Amino acid sequence: MTEKAFQDYYPDILSHCYGCGRLNEHGLQIKSRWEGDESVATYVPREYHMAIPGYVYGGLIASLIDCHSTGTAAAAAYRAEGRAMDTDPPFRFVTGSLHVDYLRPTPIDGPLEIRGKVKEIKGRKVVIESTLSANGKVCARGEVVAVQMPDSMLPGGGDK
Amino acid sequence: MTEKAFQDYYPDILSHCYGCGRLNEHGLQIKSRWEGDESVATYVPREYHMAIPGYVYGGLIASLIDCHSTGTAAAAAYRAEGRAMDTDPPFRFVTGSLHVDYLRPTPIDGPLEIRGKVKEIKGRKVVIESTLSANGKVCARGEVVAVQMPDSMLPGGGDK
Repeated sequence: MTEKAFQDYYPDILSHCYGCGRLNEHGLQIKSRWEGDESVATYVPREYHMAIPGYVYGGLIASLIDCHSTGTAAAAAYRAEGRAMDTDPPFRFVTGSLHVDYLRPTPIDGPLEIRGKVKEIKGRKVVIESTLSANGKVCARGEVVAVQMPDSMLPGGGDK
Repeated sequence: MTEKAFQDYYPDILSHCYGCGRLNEHGLQIKSRWEGDESVATYVPREYHMAIPGYVYGGLIASLIDCHSTGTAAAAAYRAEGRAMDTDPPFRFVTGSLHVDYLRPTPIDGPLEIRGKVKEIKGRKVVIESTLSANGKVCARGEVVAVQMPDSMLPGGGDK
């Protein structure tokens, strides 16, 4: 896949997130892209991301759903305005709330697919519903309320 | 503090969790203890656990709340039976659902304190409410529905 991911459009200063920053060498560096009306990311868990031998720990699942959803929220906000992701002003979202239902143990021995859908866009808020699957089976469902990042959170943003 | 943490009572086979396993050398290795009716854990985030410079990424917060809550659920189940944590049969809980409200950006430059309280114990289910604070300010609130781990999830558990 050569198409740029949502996260590849984030400016450098916003690309250090452990979950999705392309500049965080310790992090997960997830990559999310549109597939029609859904956003998709794939992540291969590392062996030590286990809960018990054979299964992924819940915090990784929450992290993947979280970062994939805030990325999808940003991409959806651009889409809603009919703008490309490299146009100004930039959109960046933070998590207002995160909910995850763990439906079944998630096997660790292969790629996890996270798919997101926009449930609602309203003002500075975007709600994303998502699933996390392994081997074609949905193992967890998530809902994230993402809110547009306040300028005050940006380095130097308080000075504007 | 010399008192053993909840997680120090987990049997070896259940001590590999990335969030709370004492045998996972890559993991967070959180330690939770009672303080009256509340459970408390402290975690110092690493520099690369950032969302944006200066702040903790949401997935770490979710992970800390998750593992602290399942540990608290186990400890609460022993307490409810009036048993010490090193008595048989062992209790171990997995996450049924996780909800986190992110109230304010969480500064990364110091310890985070996670405090849990039992909201409900019923059958194989324990509901834990928690807060995550930095510098004495609550930055996130969590609720975890923890369910007693099915034997089938334990290695060799299906053979019993």
